[in-house]
Amino acid sequence: MRKSLQKIVLAIAVTGTLHIAYAADPKPEEEIRYRQSAFNVIGRNFNALGAIAKGERPYDQAFAVKTAALLELLAPLPFGSFGPGTDKGALNKADPKIWTEQAKYKEAAEKFQVEIAKLSAAAKDLNSLKAQVGEIGKTCKGCHDDFRLKEARQ
Amino acid sequence: MRKSLQKIVLAIAVTGTLHIAYAADPKPEEEIRYRQSAFNVIGRNFNALGAIAKGERPYDQAFAVKTAALLELLAPLPFGSFGPGTDKGALNKADPKIWTEQAKYKEAAEKFQVEIAKLSAAAKDLNSLKAQVGEIGKTCKGCHDDFRLKEARQ
Repeated sequence: MRKSLQKIVLAIAVTGTLHIAYAADPKPEEEIRYRQSAFNVIGRNFNALGAIAKGERPYDQAFAVKTAALLELLAPLPFGSFGPGTDKGALNKADPKIWTEQAKYKEAAEKFQVEIAKLSAAAKDLNSLKAQVGEIGKTCKGCHDDFRLKEARQ
Repeated sequence: MRKSLQKIVLAIAVTGTLHIAYAADPKPEEEIRYRQSAFNVIGRNFNALGAIAKGERPYDQAFAVKTAALLELLAPLPFGSFGPGTDKGALNKADPKIWTEQAKYKEAAEKFQVEIAKLSAAAKDLNSLKAQVGEIGKTCKGCHDDFRLKEARQ
């Protein structure tokens, strides 16, 4: 109970607002696993569109639009699981800068959301899909370069 | 190469059709991680609707409909990663019966897809959401009872 209260106080301090957690308060290791899971599903599905963009897989409009819709819904999920105290608890590559450089981290995460939001429309046409996959890829790389460690740590 | 060919032959034998894998042939440990990731994201989001159904979280139509859309798109994903040779390679709880009782396993997986497909419509109203969350929950439990081991194995 005391730990939950500390977390709420920390959450208010970091975000300036109080988010009520309705689900059972997830443990740091659960948060780490969840964000890794969401990134894994995002990664494989984004790579499928990347293969189309690179000409390694034929363009199929229905598949591209459906995958874009999935990616758009998935995109915010991992970023909800980088709360205070979730830097440790399981092997993970999150750079401590995520918690010490919150403004820069949030800006990087926001860029990804902005570009992902354009994917559903772009997926309707091969050329626009190629261009948008490139734009999204840059935001992935930007955030990984700045906020993902090379080696996982406990 | 020989192993890939064996996999294709096995895939034809099991599914009766030939699915060409466009992405780089994923390793068993990647398939295990992917299906676990997809189930993890499905689980947390389904539990959020479960909390609404149980009255632990207030009903919010926009949230419920969006989460239902996400779940519908996620639902088929893990079942694409139980191919031949993916029973081992990383810690996992997949029961070997998945590969020896394919017809029964596919029937169980199909039940989940059928009920998930009704969730978007049901999410528009609290009472129908409650009922449909119950129906989906039964298909989760059914498949877990029959095809998920209690302890993970390598």
